[in-house]
Amino acid sequence: MRNLAWINGSVCNLSEASISLEDRGYLLGDGVYEIIRVYNKTPFYLSAHLERIKRSAREIRLPLPYSPVEIEAVITDLLKQSGCIEGYIYIQLTRGPAPRDHLFPVEPKPSMVFYVREMASPGGADAVKPGKCITLPDERWLNCYIKSTNLLPNVLARQKAAEAGAVEAILYRAGGIVTEATRSNVFAVIGDKVRTHPESKLILSGITRRIALDILEELDVPSAEEAFTIEDLSSASEVFLTSTTMEIKPVCAVDEKPVGNNKTGPVGRSVIKAFWDKIAEHCPKE
Amino acid sequence: MRNLAWINGSVCNLSEASISLEDRGYLLGDGVYEIIRVYNKTPFYLSAHLERIKRSAREIRLPLPYSPVEIEAVITDLLKQSGCIEGYIYIQLTRGPAPRDHLFPVEPKPSMVFYVREMASPGGADAVKPGKCITLPDERWLNCYIKSTNLLPNVLARQKAAEAGAVEAILYRAGGIVTEATRSNVFAVIGDKVRTHPESKLILSGITRRIALDILEELDVPSAEEAFTIEDLSSASEVFLTSTTMEIKPVCAVDEKPVGNNKTGPVGRSVIKAFWDKIAEHCPKE
Repeated sequence: MRNLAWINGSVCNLSEASISLEDRGYLLGDGVYEIIRVYNKTPFYLSAHLERIKRSAREIRLPLPYSPVEIEAVITDLLKQSGCIEGYIYIQLTRGPAPRDHLFPVEPKPSMVFYVREMASPGGADAVKPGKCITLPDERWLNCYIKSTNLLPNVLARQKAAEAGAVEAILYRAGGIVTEATRSNVFAVIGDKVRTHPESKLILSGITRRIALDILEELDVPSAEEAFTIEDLSSASEVFLTSTTMEIKPVCAVDEKPVGNNKTGPVGRSVIKAFWDKIAEHCPKE
Repeated sequence: MRNLAWINGSVCNLSEASISLEDRGYLLGDGVYEIIRVYNKTPFYLSAHLERIKRSAREIRLPLPYSPVEIEAVITDLLKQSGCIEGYIYIQLTRGPAPRDHLFPVEPKPSMVFYVREMASPGGADAVKPGKCITLPDERWLNCYIKSTNLLPNVLARQKAAEAGAVEAILYRAGGIVTEATRSNVFAVIGDKVRTHPESKLILSGITRRIALDILEELDVPSAEEAFTIEDLSSASEVFLTSTTMEIKPVCAVDEKPVGNNKTGPVGRSVIKAFWDKIAEHCPKE
């Protein structure tokens, strides 16, 4: 497939795509984004992602310059032109180019860019293979429910994790409360319940998080949107992460302390299997 | 003058300057910046700004791709080509273009861009004219000492201030502790002392803040790097802000409550006058 970009109406190769130096997304981080997986040529949970970018944009007072119908048309066309089978669509909306000033431009020209990139789905044994996590203080701003491009804290924490041989850094705030990880939500089986941080301004309302909660309900596994601490985490029998790009990722150790018996547990396995069923249902092979 | 940009070695008109869509500065906010004022064709406190961007870059583990001598040569050339007399130089350093991933690229290609833009110095009566401020909770991340481009919280707070008819939003954390404002440091005359938040991870180490502290010492005005609260602020006889672009800005009201007698006070006036003397000394008219 070809990795293609769509910038305010024109399509080009992603590697040649450029934006204005004075774009407020570049100078001020004044933008929001979404990533949507494509399985079997079909975007997965597209409308949930479009709802979320609309919400993020509203929270930073940035009107979407296109209607959902127009956005879906752009995506359909881009997927077709690129020949994408397995990949992802990236959307970034910024307050556009303007002479640098914190203040909103008097006549804002919001800029919306899309690109599509190849991305293999792990599938098979790799998908259930667990990974290690570290824990780090959550040093981000207090409005993490807005999916903004202000990702430097996430970048730095995730890099630390990788250098410690971990797939993710689980973040905690005062009192050791686990919020989420640098690019995923965190689920833990504590006692007889699967718990994850409730919706709040401190976490992103993950689409895969919501799918996982739905799956748990469908599977009749007791679950609750209840915060837990780093200490609770050390007594969890299972931990897994959810995100659009990582899908459902089991965790076998936190800060080098094994979780459960160091393997992907039964709840994690069931959720992964049900998640694959959802992909097959929503994005069927032709 | 012509507003010009320098991007990794090539000079063009700022309005035509572009960067890669996949630049990590645009996608992830993975970058730091500086703004340096130019008075009478001469950059003001250039070496202090270059030291600071080096520090910001080090804190995000991003090596400067050019030496200070090379950077100064770029700036000198850009100022000459643009014919800049009164303006500012903007420098942004990012971890460069790479397929989007939080992880640092294996072979990073840091990108450093400069631009120069015209900016008049207020001078005269306008410079001592005080402005109103509002107060807002400081919702930013915990590493504000790094001058990163993750400025969305600053953008939103500053916009709120403007809509309330204020020049700035003064930010406070738990316990009402004033940290700084969205784009300036805050000084308050409380009792017989001028106070400002001490250097910490929660504030930017402002160059103009440092100049103001030096001036206060030179003028024998008692001052201290001591935090104060919103409540302390309401009893302040004078408040002023310091920043590269705002210079020394007196404050006449905080949250609609007048400060002092609603006019620029004697300490503010003395600091402004001494600041102009510094400009004349460092950037003399030819």
